[in-house]
Amino acid sequence: MGSDSPLLLAAVSLLSGLQMGYLARRVGWSRMAHKVLPPAVTGPPEFERTFRAHQNCVEFYPLFLVSMWTCGLFFNEATAAAGGLVYMIARLMYFNGYVAAGKKRLPGFFLTLAVLGALFLLAFIGIMRGILHKYFHIHLF
Amino acid sequence: MGSDSPLLLAAVSLLSGLQMGYLARRVGWSRMAHKVLPPAVTGPPEFERTFRAHQNCVEFYPLFLVSMWTCGLFFNEATAAAGGLVYMIARLMYFNGYVAAGKKRLPGFFLTLAVLGALFLLAFIGIMRGILHKYFHIHLF
Amino acid sequence: MGSDSPLLLAAVSLLSGLQMGYLARRVGWSRMAHKVLPPAVTGPPEFERTFRAHQNCVEFYPLFLVSMWTCGLFFNEATAAAGGLVYMIARLMYFNGYVAAGKKRLPGFFLTLAVLGALFLLAFIGIMRGILHKYFHIHLF
Repeated sequence: MGSDSPLLLAAVSLLSGLQMGYLARRVGWSRMAHKVLPPAVTGPPEFERTFRAHQNCVEFYPLFLVSMWTCGLFFNEATAAAGGLVYMIARLMYFNGYVAAGKKRLPGFFLTLAVLGALFLLAFIGIMRGILHKYFHIHLF
Repeated sequence: MGSDSPLLLAAVSLLSGLQMGYLARRVGWSRMAHKVLPPAVTGPPEFERTFRAHQNCVEFYPLFLVSMWTCGLFFNEATAAAGGLVYMIARLMYFNGYVAAGKKRLPGFFLTLAVLGALFLLAFIGIMRGILHKYFHIHLF
Repeated sequence: MGSDSPLLLAAVSLLSGLQMGYLARRVGWSRMAHKVLPPAVTGPPEFERTFRAHQNCVEFYPLFLVSMWTCGLFFNEATAAAGGLVYMIARLMYFNGYVAAGKKRLPGFFLTLAVLGALFLLAFIGIMRGILHKYFHIHLF
């Protein structure tokens, strides 16, 4: 890879992958603490909240990767990588909140949506600018 | 990114990400309509069908991204992007059908498989051509 | 794409996507064998183990793609592609083991973790080397 390779995006992707592994591990620990043996996915409310918190993170993860990478490649890499770090904080807030109580998942959830929305918007701007430039020869800022 | 950057793939990826967000939102609306509070994932049949329809889309989403991007990078970008748009239509048909009735999920499901199969096949052709060219110095069409 | 395009990573990604499709298909076959109609996800233990085995593969799949691609782009492509093939073997061992008995999922699971860990570690080394080179002008091996 040349010097324009997206090292920061790769680094944040790798970090977020480790975080996903850590969150999966916490579901495993919750299984042990509440004696919920695989393949069961029902049990005490705290286990079920932990399980659902992780499922939600799994559902969001490809959306996060798509929005961070398109934002980073077509808008600005450092901005996208910083957004990725905020996303990781938001997911941890969400996960810890949800494990504590159903309602406590909301602050982290809204921060997740805010940072994902920002990454999508900046990616959209970058891609539209690129399409206007490449296919319509219109040069914006 | 240079002028050979895959803008169309990025644009369709972003659109499909928005669609995934919209489908997740519909599970949330179904929760409210049927008073199924998180972390519960069981309830009236219509809620359970909505929940499973979304889960199926979550399961397929990485396969879609892999097949569209490899098809676009190694076969032809515009073809892959067009396939991506058909995939989004197929998933919406599937989702709406499944919410209405279990059997009505099938037309959208088969269209999903058809477009995914086409993207995989074209990606396979493109990658094989590239491998023959790069590692065996055999130049096909 | 030029001659430096990651053909091996693309080929293994495509193969792993086919494997994911095959595993999803096996859940469908298990549904038919045990007469568990969608959207139900509970039933005889063997069906539930098959269902959970597939879910686990779905959860791991984006982590696998991130680690194989970052390892391949920033460390070494052939190593990453070989790791990807081992990952696919590990997942098949895990899936078949889990379908047979809950405890039999473990050897394949540990092999999955080992190969993912190796891919992550090599990707981390490659990215760190790249960041030191690009942002700090420190040239390692």
